Amino acid sequence: MSSRAEPAAETTVDAFHWGRFVLVQPSRGGHRAGLDAMLLAATVPGGFGGTLADLGAGAGAAALAVLSRCPDAGAVMYENDPSMADCARQTLAQPENASLAPRARIVTADVTLDGTARETAGLERERFDHVIANPPFNDSRDRKTPDAVRAAAHVIDGKTMQAWIKTAAAIARPGGRFSMIARPSMLADILIGIERRFGALAIRPVHPRAGEAAIRVLVSGVKGSRARLAMLPAVILHPDGASGQFTPEADALINGESALSMAL
Amino acid sequence: MSSRAEPAAETTVDAFHWGRFVLVQPSRGGHRAGLDAMLLAATVPGGFGGTLADLGAGAGAAALAVLSRCPDAGAVMYENDPSMADCARQTLAQPENASLAPRARIVTADVTLDGTARETAGLERERFDHVIANPPFNDSRDRKTPDAVRAAAHVIDGKTMQAWIKTAAAIARPGGRFSMIARPSMLADILIGIERRFGALAIRPVHPRAGEAAIRVLVSGVKGSRARLAMLPAVILHPDGASGQFTPEADALINGESALSMAL
Repeated sequence: MSSRAEPAAETTVDAFHWGRFVLVQPSRGGHRAGLDAMLLAATVPGGFGGTLADLGAGAGAAALAVLSRCPDAGAVMYENDPSMADCARQTLAQPENASLAPRARIVTADVTLDGTARETAGLERERFDHVIANPPFNDSRDRKTPDAVRAAAHVIDGKTMQAWIKTAAAIARPGGRFSMIARPSMLADILIGIERRFGALAIRPVHPRAGEAAIRVLVSGVKGSRARLAMLPAVILHPDGASGQFTPEADALINGESALSMAL
Repeated sequence: MSSRAEPAAETTVDAFHWGRFVLVQPSRGGHRAGLDAMLLAATVPGGFGGTLADLGAGAGAAALAVLSRCPDAGAVMYENDPSMADCARQTLAQPENASLAPRARIVTADVTLDGTARETAGLERERFDHVIANPPFNDSRDRKTPDAVRAAAHVIDGKTMQAWIKTAAAIARPGGRFSMIARPSMLADILIGIERRFGALAIRPVHPRAGEAAIRVLVSGVKGSRARLAMLPAVILHPDGASGQFTPEADALINGESALSMAL
């Protein structure tokens, strides 16, 4: 084990995709990756062999999930928090990730930058075949988040959401794809920001169970397309009455065994 | 049959809600009512006993469906097309509708009017407990509509959609509810228009079958509420593989035997 890059004391090494890759991440707090990153990664089509940008990459969960499922893909992971970018660097150094690391690069950058500052920070224009984004989730009215650090990192308002989408549109190549995961409460801000920048918009709500309100929404688009918005069938995470158990569809998506089509 | 108001030659008299009311409507063309009006009417809660405004009432299908299901409700039907308003008048004169007609009133008015012109046209401010709207459906890019008259009547752009929503907000009382049915492609325009005017927004997509993209979306809100947008479980019209047959849920909604909750 001497060749293994040791994580700092406050981190854990967690397996994803049935152990096909691992993630070094803070041992607690709101930055820990899970379902959201795996569902977001699932929106990248099977067989994707282009270059992916992951905005708000954290420790690299979503980007690595794409690299793990798509052996010809490359990824640039953009993360503004230096401690999370450091986790991402440690993640790439883990021996379990040896086949993924050569296809990944980490850039510490603020994805809400604009114009020249954005390019200088390493967010290159019209470079990416697919851009994924996992913006900070809790909106500014949310008082339920217990951890102050988590609260600070997870606050996003409509203006910030639109800055994320603007960057995604700037760095996607013409015809490139964009997908994001967010709370349903952000849908209006997302559609306002995304509408003139991407077409062929597709929405998939994510419901805990079939009869419950959605807890997340996946939204995707194609740069330059004029096709209309489509509302696609929902993803249902758990069977009725079962807790801790996933539906077969959700289980396959979360574990990188299938992609979630954002077009029908 | 001498007491029966005879419809003009180009109209038909069609039964809805298993014959509990009838509709006089043009014998052909895009104005004929069906599923959309019945689903929209289903968003009015069971036991509703207030005053309803139906914007774009046509021959009165949605308003009558509410009056039929809610015996204490009253309705004002706003329709801009004089020939459709005439159908609505004939509809109220049918003997089958005798228990509904005393609770309904028809106003020929353009719901896109604003300010004093809107009030003068009979769209009274803060008067209604629930406003429903079935705006013209096809967007201006739609070339598939075969009938020229139908095309003219059914074109709506983002600006017009927002005028409809603005009127709905003006005529709803504080705390009053609004619901509309539209194509999913209009969702961005709807959310842009509705967001600052109504809260507690709820979205229910309507899918032909479980695995197919939605063909309609039901959107509702509460005037003055600050509650967040919720994406509720979809309405599925037909069982997989079955054509011409409705799911039990859809069948009950369409026939006025249950309401569609827009809150969970």
